[in-house]
Amino acid sequence: MIKIVAKNTVKEGKKEELLLLIKELVDKSRAEEGNISYDLCEDINDSNVLTFIEEWKDQDAIDKHNATEHFTRLVPKIGALTIAEGSEIRLYTKVL
Amino acid sequence: MIKIVAKNTVKEGKKEELLLLIKELVDKSRAEEGNISYDLCEDINDSNVLTFIEEWKDQDAIDKHNATEHFTRLVPKIGALTIAEGSEIRLYTKVL
Repeated sequence: MIKIVAKNTVKEGKKEELLLLIKELVDKSRAEEGNISYDLCEDINDSNVLTFIEEWKDQDAIDKHNATEHFTRLVPKIGALTIAEGSEIRLYTKVL
Repeated sequence: MIKIVAKNTVKEGKKEELLLLIKELVDKSRAEEGNISYDLCEDINDSNVLTFIEEWKDQDAIDKHNATEHFTRLVPKIGALTIAEGSEIRLYTKVL
């Protein structure tokens, strides 16, 4: 199992537009065979920080996800509404 | 439900010592009434980045956690083995 934490900082005034794009991505990603969980979360202390916390069966599932129509269409659009400096993506394996 | 992502960067050569401290913290935190999940994860691309990905029932459960004997004893010791610049803690609520 691989966990992904993908932190994004939204550009001022773009949150509503961004959430519409993300809603479609969340729904279609959860439907993928290799997905375990796929949540969009908001930082309690900074409402402009929106972070995906995801769980995937393995790297193959992630590779397939990254090649889906919804990912390749939506992720660039999402990226255009976020601030690069405040964004970070990390892939994790569970240790304990 | 509140998710916590607490990213830590380990000081060079301190990983083994740190994992022993964390093991106790993980076991005792999972046993707490308000805990849903409490995982320690390692960054696939940087083995010195160790991140707690936690789920708690609510803020009250987190407040109780932060006041436990194991938290107050272990967290300062864990902090001493990590690099401040590479560490970050964020609390999240699920949006989608």
